[in-house]
Parts: sequence; C-alpha cells; structure tokens
Amino acid sequence: MTESEKRRLALNARLSEHKIDALLVTHGPNVRYLTGFTGSNGLLLIRPDAAVFFTDPRYTIQASEEVDCKVEIVKKGPLVEAAASLAKRWKIKRLGFGSGHVTVDAYEKLKSSLPLGVTLRPASGLVEALRLIKSNDEVDAIRRAVEANSKAFQHTVPLIRPGPRESDVAAELEFQMRRNGAEKPAFETIVAAGVRSALPHALPTSHRLANNELLLIDMGATLDGYTSDMTRVAYLGTAPQKVKRMYRAVLEAQKAAISIIKEGVTAGQVDKAARDVLKKHGLDKSFVHSTGHGLGLEIHEAPRIAAGEKTKLEAGMVITIEPGAYEEGFGGIRIEDTVLVTRYSREVLTPTPRELINL
Amino acid sequence: MTESEKRRLALNARLSEHKIDALLVTHGPNVRYLTGFTGSNGLLLIRPDAAVFFTDPRYTIQASEEVDCKVEIVKKGPLVEAAASLAKRWKIKRLGFGSGHVTVDAYEKLKSSLPLGVTLRPASGLVEALRLIKSNDEVDAIRRAVEANSKAFQHTVPLIRPGPRESDVAAELEFQMRRNGAEKPAFETIVAAGVRSALPHALPTSHRLANNELLLIDMGATLDGYTSDMTRVAYLGTAPQKVKRMYRAVLEAQKAAISIIKEGVTAGQVDKAARDVLKKHGLDKSFVHSTGHGLGLEIHEAPRIAAGEKTKLEAGMVITIEPGAYEEGFGGIRIEDTVLVTRYSREVLTPTPRELINL
Repeated sequence: MTESEKRRLALNARLSEHKIDALLVTHGPNVRYLTGFTGSNGLLLIRPDAAVFFTDPRYTIQASEEVDCKVEIVKKGPLVEAAASLAKRWKIKRLGFGSGHVTVDAYEKLKSSLPLGVTLRPASGLVEALRLIKSNDEVDAIRRAVEANSKAFQHTVPLIRPGPRESDVAAELEFQMRRNGAEKPAFETIVAAGVRSALPHALPTSHRLANNELLLIDMGATLDGYTSDMTRVAYLGTAPQKVKRMYRAVLEAQKAAISIIKEGVTAGQVDKAARDVLKKHGLDKSFVHSTGHGLGLEIHEAPRIAAGEKTKLEAGMVITIEPGAYEEGFGGIRIEDTVLVTRYSREVLTPTPRELINL
Repeated sequence: MTESEKRRLALNARLSEHKIDALLVTHGPNVRYLTGFTGSNGLLLIRPDAAVFFTDPRYTIQASEEVDCKVEIVKKGPLVEAAASLAKRWKIKRLGFGSGHVTVDAYEKLKSSLPLGVTLRPASGLVEALRLIKSNDEVDAIRRAVEANSKAFQHTVPLIRPGPRESDVAAELEFQMRRNGAEKPAFETIVAAGVRSALPHALPTSHRLANNELLLIDMGATLDGYTSDMTRVAYLGTAPQKVKRMYRAVLEAQKAAISIIKEGVTAGQVDKAARDVLKKHGLDKSFVHSTGHGLGLEIHEAPRIAAGEKTKLEAGMVITIEPGAYEEGFGGIRIEDTVLVTRYSREVLTPTPRELINL
C-alpha cells in the first residue's frame, strides 16, 4: 500500500464521525498529501470505497505519473463542477468540504451544481488533523529541508562583511539552499539589518550592511514539498552590552520552551515557558508574536504554539520555537529552531549553533 | 494625494453601485493595492469617508512606515473580529466582502461578530476591477520585472551545456533575477528538459541536461510587488525537423494572437487567433491550455485570455500571450511574452528574441 493510500484509509475512517458520506478536498497541500499530486490545480473527491482526483489538461501527463487513485481530466469548466457531478452520480447525501479553504464564491458554485437533496457540511481540518502527526518519511523530508537550510546558512553567513545589500544576502542564501537540494525557499527569506531587525517580518531591502549593526536572518527551505524554518542573529563588529543582554534573554527563553517539550504538554505551556523568561528580563512587552507553529507541507500548520493554546503535543509533531524581542529604533533578536516532538522528550532538528554570531 | 488614496477614492465611488455602505478587503494583493502594506497579515475596512487598516503587533512598525490611512493594531483575536467591531461602531448596514477570497469559515466568524441588523453582501472583484487597468507607475514596475526576468535569462541560458540538473538551471535563473533587482521569482521557475517539456507545468527535477533534448524555461520575476512572465524554448544540439516545425507553428500562433491585440478586441478573439493557427497546423489538440492571463500584483489576474471570453481588452491591461503544443513522449513548445494593451495597438514588453535557441 502506498503512503497516500494509507492516508486516504485513515481519512475515510473519520468520515462517518463527521456525519458525511464523502469529502471534497480542495486545498493544495491536502490534495498533495492524499494523492501525491504536486501541481497547482487539482481536487479530490473521496468516499470510503472510492477516490477520484480531478485536474485540467495541462496536468494530464503529470497526474498519470504522480497520482495513485483514479484521475479525471476536466476539459471544460471548473473542477468543482465536475466533482459535484460525480457526487451526484455517487448519490452522496452529505458532502463534506474544507470550509477553512473553500471561498464563499466556490461554495455557492458547488451548491448550485449539486442536486437539491444534497447537504453540504463544513468539515474543516479533517486532513489537517492527519497531517499534524508526521510519518517517518515526512520527518525525513523535513530533516533534509532543515539540512539544506543550515548548510546554506553555514556556507554564506560566516563570510558576510559590510558592503552587500540585505537583498544580496537573501539571494545568496536562497541560491545555496537550492544548491543543497531545496526546490525553493519555504517563504521569503528575511534579512534585516540594524534597526530594521526590529520588524519581525521585514523583507530584504537595498540597505547595505554596515559595521556595528545587528543582522537578523529568518530562512526556510522547501525540499520534496516539506519545509524548514530557522532564525539566527549576527552582529557586525563587537556587540554592545545591550545586544548581548537581549540575546541572552531570548536564548534563555528559547531553551526554556524547548526543554519542556514532550508528549502531553500543551502548546500554551510551551509558549508560557518562553514568555515567563522574557518577563523575568523585563522583555515580555517586546515579544510581540507567538512562540511557534507547526510545519510540514506548509510553513504554517497546526499546532499554534501560542498563549492559552490547549492542544496537547504528540510524538511526531514538528514545530518551531522562536521567541523574540524587538525594540523600535534599536533592533530585534529572534532565535528559531525546528523541533520534533517525541514520546518523552524532543529532538532539535536544526544543527546550527545558537550563539550570537560575531562577524 | 498618494496613489493608494486615489485608488481608495475610485473604490469608494463604486460602493453605492454595489449597494454596500462599506467594504471589508481581506485579500493580500488587494490590501496592498489600497494601502501600500506589503506584509502578510492585514485587512482594510473602507467606507466613503474613512478607511482603517488592521494588522497584528508583528507589523506595528512596518504598518506605520507603509500604510497611508489609519492603522489599528489588533493585540488579541482575529483581525476580522476587530474589523467587525468597527463596522458595528460605524453603524454599517450593508457590509460588502470579497467573496472570491473569504473562506466559508471566515465568513461564519465575520457573521457571528456582527450585530443582527447587518447584511453581509458578497462583493467579489471590486478591487480586482480597478487593478485590471494599470497606472503608469504600475506599468513601470512591470517593465522593471520584465527586464530583470529577461536579463537573468540572457545571462544564464546562452551558457547552458549538457551536464547540469534542471534544478541547477532554475536556481541560477532565480539567483540572477534577484541580482537584477527582483524580490523573488513570481512563481516556481519551470525548467523542463526532453520529454518533460511536454508537461506544461513541470517543476525542475534532478534530471541532467543532455544533448539532443528540448529545454523549456518558463520564468517570472516579482519586483516592487509586480510580476513578469516569459517562456522560451531551446534545443541542445541540432533541432530535428519535427521540433522546428512545431516551433514555427507555435511562434506563428503567438504572433497571430499578439498582432490583433488592441482596445476593444475581446479576450476570446485573441485566444481564437492563436488557436486557429495551431489548428491549421494540426496542433489544436496539442494546445491544452488557454492563451494567456493578466498579471500585475499577482501572476494570474483578470482578464483570462481563453476560448469564448467576452471581456474587451482596454488600454493599460497587461497580459501574457503563451500558446503551446505538447506531445507526450516527445516534448513541448511554448512561447510566452508579457504584453501591454494600448489604445490602437499593443507593446510587447519582453525584449528577449523569440527564435528557437540553439545551444
């Protein structure tokens, strides 16, 4: 049995719990997870004894190579209408759909393509719930993404000197990730120097790196569809005491959060572990985002590692731990690793050292 | 008045036509178009005499730098709830939302955050309708994206020899686009050699380029948020007659489609011009996609250049023209340029020669 077949089986076991006879899967990463299809336009209609994948003629050959269930090539009209027409032939009464991804317009189109007797039921997160726990193959893919990420960083960053633009550094990091096997960056690489490091999601600009500046780099690789995520901070020159102090506090917070990770701990507890340390250092108000997020086929997946989150961690989840502290007009520090949750502990997948880098 | 203010004014003039008192804008490129915000989490609530932009604390500083209307930083809970709460204070009766982007779950959340008296009205495509016609500044940005794209191609492709992997070529092209000013590729660069060129949307693999192979490259740059799109085909070695024949037919089809572009012609007529030429050469069944698409802040925008499309072209639209022919087990040809529609004619923005490249 292929990996996709196993996943479809696991999904089918959940359909009746959600009181649906079939599920329409439209979200790209969910479709890929259940079929193997890597293209951009495809959807899956699945019921306990059958699964049909729909795509357009651009993907005829690719679907025949990648997809391991029945494929229907839709020559005319939206895929969703073709799927509705099959649901009709299948005499589906209660059709579930991913209400977290289907737009209101698509929903209306779907509804008007279905016979009156069919009930459309919002069924959000069914596939995402399966994706939450990674298989060994998936963890391996994430490991390879993490490795490409860290190798690119290691190859590029120690050589950085004042002069190049933030965007040059980002371009080089992304090129090196590809050279190390990545298909693409998992998100737009953040390279933020000086006061711009205080913008948690700064995109690279033409600002040229200068001496006595902070340099924050947040990067991720996508490899075989799976992602990685890492943030490190460097200082060009001798870091002033204030930078060192902030750095130590953020690192302490990151280590505290990582140290309590294991099966059964809630995401909220992990967030609190980081937040408590920053509070002790008077930096809780400077930590303006949550502590982390799951990743896999998408760079942001469940679980959210945020204040009050009740989700219990389980072995096989892969999450980021990335506390930070930001001060407008001064700069920001963030330290981020990709971490695998295990039964009694955790494994930090990111091999890059976590100390402040002096350039 | 800033560009964004002008756009908000133009949008407001349309609200009453759609019988709405305010519009909730959630789709990233639409939000950027109307506010200047380049981050990933923001939305805009707009009514004729006011506009408020919502984002989370990660973007506090960035929003203060980029956004030219009132900014509200949402510390807790979804942005959409904060916007609903403002709509309530504004006593909005009919609130429009982009039903082509808002998911069913987000819609339900929005509905439950609003007082009972408020009607939610699907208002799809209002901002997209403005974005259809590019301003001079926007055309300039697209020109710069096209230029970065073509320069990267010109720098990389003439040097290609057998040996490197498809993914190496893609990495180099993307690196060169960044060196020429692009923020990122506009989409995953397609580098497909040999029989894989018959997959219209093939992602690069570890296949190593070899002699006597077709090489299809489809690439785009994003620069200052605006995109470009170009496809060229090369042959490693001396192209056989069949390749030359297919190439000539596709080029003839592309030229035919481009030659009829001007204000007033329908998108369907442009598609037909390409399709008719391929039919004449017996290749109509090998042309498995539409002739082109608009581009701008997104790589796929209105109008679709496809069979039967009634949209009339207008000066200021920017579209791609990209007919192709694909034969499974043999290979594929596609030739694509980015084209500006003008009052009485058109301007092909892509400067790269369109002849079959011999490597």
